[in-house]
Amino acid sequence: MNRTSSKKTRGRLFIVSAPSGTGKTTVVNLLMKVDARFARSISMTTREPRGREKNGRDYWFVSAAYFKKQIRRGAFLEYARVLGSFYGTPKAPIAKALKAGHNALMSIDIQGTRQVKKCGLPLTTIFLLPPSMRVLEQRLRKRGTETPREITERLNLARKELTAMNEYDYAVVNGQLKEATEAIRTIIRAQRYRVQ
Amino acid sequence: MNRTSSKKTRGRLFIVSAPSGTGKTTVVNLLMKVDARFARSISMTTREPRGREKNGRDYWFVSAAYFKKQIRRGAFLEYARVLGSFYGTPKAPIAKALKAGHNALMSIDIQGTRQVKKCGLPLTTIFLLPPSMRVLEQRLRKRGTETPREITERLNLARKELTAMNEYDYAVVNGQLKEATEAIRTIIRAQRYRVQ
Repeated sequence: MNRTSSKKTRGRLFIVSAPSGTGKTTVVNLLMKVDARFARSISMTTREPRGREKNGRDYWFVSAAYFKKQIRRGAFLEYARVLGSFYGTPKAPIAKALKAGHNALMSIDIQGTRQVKKCGLPLTTIFLLPPSMRVLEQRLRKRGTETPREITERLNLARKELTAMNEYDYAVVNGQLKEATEAIRTIIRAQRYRVQ
Repeated sequence: MNRTSSKKTRGRLFIVSAPSGTGKTTVVNLLMKVDARFARSISMTTREPRGREKNGRDYWFVSAAYFKKQIRRGAFLEYARVLGSFYGTPKAPIAKALKAGHNALMSIDIQGTRQVKKCGLPLTTIFLLPPSMRVLEQRLRKRGTETPREITERLNLARKELTAMNEYDYAVVNGQLKEATEAIRTIIRAQRYRVQ
């Protein structure tokens, strides 16, 4: 009787992925703010610190040799090489947080999600969708950080990424920030009752 | 883009099961009252109407021959024989309601749930748990509808039924009626975002 899933002090790992421009970062930051109990995960990278970035707060800054050793040890939930630098999410702190009953929230891409799925941690994956390609285009233009050509490339990529939705457990349309965040919170709350 | 699961006008069938005395009927009635949009399912039975029971409202009262013909036609989501009478849930009205975008809620036992799982309808199963065997015993005694011997039998059955929890998607402890109902509503809301 005491071994019911709703009484287990075991947390869950939540992944939020979305095509670029869908507002993933805003949604995830809001979720973190609303529920401070999420375990915070600090990524490891081989790139140099920028500006005020601090080791152990923004990233763990390490050498390429050390990073590769960690890959061989299977120490990453997921990792990727971007523009010549490695980025990875160490597994141990998250596994420890889940065991202590905390939830963890990661905002990573589709490739990363595929890697994390193999880790065996209790996992729920959420895909955030733009309300339409037209709205996505408007958002990217409004943001003004990309050239028209880059916007076209991003939209093509987004179209491709949307087909990955079926690999996810849940899909939420980010029409209104508040509603999308509330939908994700509902999904997260419901997982408390999930039978393992 | 318009074929996202959260936009699909397709409902889902929810099943709530629980050991006797867990308060399943109270919880399900409250859920029905709070959300009137649930499709209502009328069971079919071969037993005689009692008191003010009305055909087409409380049950469909039919002959054994008709019921058996419906079994052969595969017309039931689930059926069972209890004390010599047949009871069954017709599939067609529920399938129709789901297609129209309504959710349906059924309160059935573990055997029935096993049958419904084979029907291919989008289904979420929820197991309601008593807070403890001690509380369950107290509730049965307070209800006063069973003899001490029947209570012992029911408790033994409950102990056995609890092992079926692992066949369900979600498990909710019915400590406080309001909290348990709210938990089930959260589970139901979250399924809206489920990727099929």
